[in-house]
Amino acid sequence: MNQPLKINLTKELLELENFIIHRSCDIEQWFRTQWLENQAPFYGSVDLRNSGFKLAPVDMNLFPGGFNNLNPDFSPLAIQASSVAIEKVCPEAKRVLIIPEKHTRNLFYLKNLYQLKEILKNSGLEVRIGSVDTSILESTNIDIDENQFITIEPISRREDFLFLKNKDGTEFIPCSIILNNDLSGGVPEIIKNLGQQIIPPINAGWPTRKKSSHFHFYSQVAKEFSILTNSDPWLIDPLSEKLDNLDFSAGEGEDRLEETIDSLLDQIQKKYSEYNISQDPYIVVKANAGTYGMGVMTVKSSSEAINLNRKMRKKMSVIKEGMSVSEVLVQEGIHTEETINAAVAEPVVYMIDHFVVGGFYRVHTSKGKDENLNSPGMHFEPVAFETSCLMPDQGRPCHDKANRFYAYGVIARLSMLAASKELAERK
Amino acid sequence: MNQPLKINLTKELLELENFIIHRSCDIEQWFRTQWLENQAPFYGSVDLRNSGFKLAPVDMNLFPGGFNNLNPDFSPLAIQASSVAIEKVCPEAKRVLIIPEKHTRNLFYLKNLYQLKEILKNSGLEVRIGSVDTSILESTNIDIDENQFITIEPISRREDFLFLKNKDGTEFIPCSIILNNDLSGGVPEIIKNLGQQIIPPINAGWPTRKKSSHFHFYSQVAKEFSILTNSDPWLIDPLSEKLDNLDFSAGEGEDRLEETIDSLLDQIQKKYSEYNISQDPYIVVKANAGTYGMGVMTVKSSSEAINLNRKMRKKMSVIKEGMSVSEVLVQEGIHTEETINAAVAEPVVYMIDHFVVGGFYRVHTSKGKDENLNSPGMHFEPVAFETSCLMPDQGRPCHDKANRFYAYGVIARLSMLAASKELAERK
Repeated sequence: MNQPLKINLTKELLELENFIIHRSCDIEQWFRTQWLENQAPFYGSVDLRNSGFKLAPVDMNLFPGGFNNLNPDFSPLAIQASSVAIEKVCPEAKRVLIIPEKHTRNLFYLKNLYQLKEILKNSGLEVRIGSVDTSILESTNIDIDENQFITIEPISRREDFLFLKNKDGTEFIPCSIILNNDLSGGVPEIIKNLGQQIIPPINAGWPTRKKSSHFHFYSQVAKEFSILTNSDPWLIDPLSEKLDNLDFSAGEGEDRLEETIDSLLDQIQKKYSEYNISQDPYIVVKANAGTYGMGVMTVKSSSEAINLNRKMRKKMSVIKEGMSVSEVLVQEGIHTEETINAAVAEPVVYMIDHFVVGGFYRVHTSKGKDENLNSPGMHFEPVAFETSCLMPDQGRPCHDKANRFYAYGVIARLSMLAASKELAERK
Repeated sequence: MNQPLKINLTKELLELENFIIHRSCDIEQWFRTQWLENQAPFYGSVDLRNSGFKLAPVDMNLFPGGFNNLNPDFSPLAIQASSVAIEKVCPEAKRVLIIPEKHTRNLFYLKNLYQLKEILKNSGLEVRIGSVDTSILESTNIDIDENQFITIEPISRREDFLFLKNKDGTEFIPCSIILNNDLSGGVPEIIKNLGQQIIPPINAGWPTRKKSSHFHFYSQVAKEFSILTNSDPWLIDPLSEKLDNLDFSAGEGEDRLEETIDSLLDQIQKKYSEYNISQDPYIVVKANAGTYGMGVMTVKSSSEAINLNRKMRKKMSVIKEGMSVSEVLVQEGIHTEETINAAVAEPVVYMIDHFVVGGFYRVHTSKGKDENLNSPGMHFEPVAFETSCLMPDQGRPCHDKANRFYAYGVIARLSMLAASKELAERK
């Protein structure tokens, strides 16, 4: 990334970043004790927003799909982290099966799969990819680059285990299954009640996971962390509220939505006034379970939400693979103030186990700073982080890339820690 | 390293390298199960030799002193590995004290200390350096580069713990002590019977450690590994024999030394004949406990060893810090056939916990290929490995750098595994 990354921080956020950079030993020690008590998920990615007065996660993905966007220079870091993760969860494993998302036509996603496979392979596993997509009837090679292709195979099941059929009639029986499918479309029958270990577990998928639960635990983690940094947890924590029993197409629950939005906008405005922030507060309403930017709307007033036009209603009422939305998370919007060459830039941090293995910016030239950057059909330019997130340089200013990325890695790990607690609760 | 690295391999070694590259999954899985049963030392470095017909460790150092020679691009790898090691051995630690070697005038060693300190700091520890050298009476800054200096402080002890005095009268009390001193000169009183944890433990130092014990365990490990690779363990294991109760200055034990050398030369010659190797076998006689290339002699016949001149006898009879040699390891010499720009090159692999974090070549232009490259006053040019040792590329030939370095990392880890067993036995 040779483009200059631009953002101005308020005094409070600068103080927090300063603390993070200069007290990195305290922070790492704090994390060490946290990871003694909490088992990190196998992998994850966190979408961050930096508004200059607030630096916080807006989404935590337990089935990350952008390994291809990371800086290839840091692949060894991902391999090493993956080795540690495998030692923890399946040390005896030799063969693993990746179960990917169904959208096999998305070239970017296929490149992600390729990278994920390479990481796992280099950490010492025999890896094959088997899809739960029943339209895949035979082993299929898909070109993803001039000299690279990826093979996606149909999965077979016998009793309580999955396997792939080899061409010579033998079978590939995986010791463990790595899930890279967030199960937004429901849990496919074929992966239910397996004898093989599924990593992350099925209950990390959207049929059981709730964003509200993640942010509930995140708020706890942010509070604890803020005691350490002696700062206002709001600086790193988006306010949010859960609403259930909604029916967008029937208008069911609109009154409660209106109330919640108004109350949240009030709370945000109070915080803005406290910190002399002149920007307009806004709210993001998202499906409480789901992904891929569907079912997300951005509003600056409750009336805006209520006066949804038909198209928007339809958009809100379905998420990926046709699932309908009956529960939403009403969340404080965080302005994206970071820009690269005047284009809005949203940082995404990637982790394997509790190790930050890299990150990238989603850079979008045509969107406004309070719009969701991960919306359907959206075109973004990934810009890999140039340095690792592991080496704060106390002799340099906070906006130095190494320092900014370290701070991003810290906030992302807080979100990963919240995800650990979230998964532990459902065990 | 843009210079071409040159070496020709025999069929057998090529087969072994091929196995290592193409069956990396089996190898990594094998290592995983090994590390489940064996706790790796905190850190270590392994000197390898590649003769084209044999690739083996010749030395395993538990107090590595060349972190400054590693490729800085892979510092994040060392930091991550160090985080894992700290989580295992001292997760609650916040402040650590490095106890370095005494030779504070060796600029290269000081640069190593600086790097080691940076790695530990970035993995989340407050690090200071305190010397057991009683001539250091006050905190001393030593310049190691234009903008870098290192601070070495005198150590204080009260009851069973060490501390450093701060200028303001307060104290720096480390939770743990990282030893980067191989204790060749004996165990200083001040570090005996401490309440603080010492990492690696004192018994990893030369007063207790024996090279013969390392190579005894290494032979076991090499045998097990060779079952996996279905190859002759001799390809990766130097033959060796221990001799004790020697007195070089009094000529005590010369007959036994002569016998051992002759017998070992015989065994090597048999192996050379088996593999049609035309080179002359040779023997390295080294102090069984000790380091820094003192007390090492290279002979091609037993008479050569017996007809030592006075100077050589003196050299053999003392190692670092004036300790005398009464036990030796008589070991098969391994020709150094690797060259970089026609200069002899000896690979050194660095590990933290069981992770390979980098390596470098000791490149020496004026020495012969059967001489010890780590001898006193010897000047070598370190050439950092250009890629990590983590990414074998099965689409490329064995001599591809990434593949060669991966193979080196595998053999070095076998030596690290032997060191684990060696330390466990002395617990």
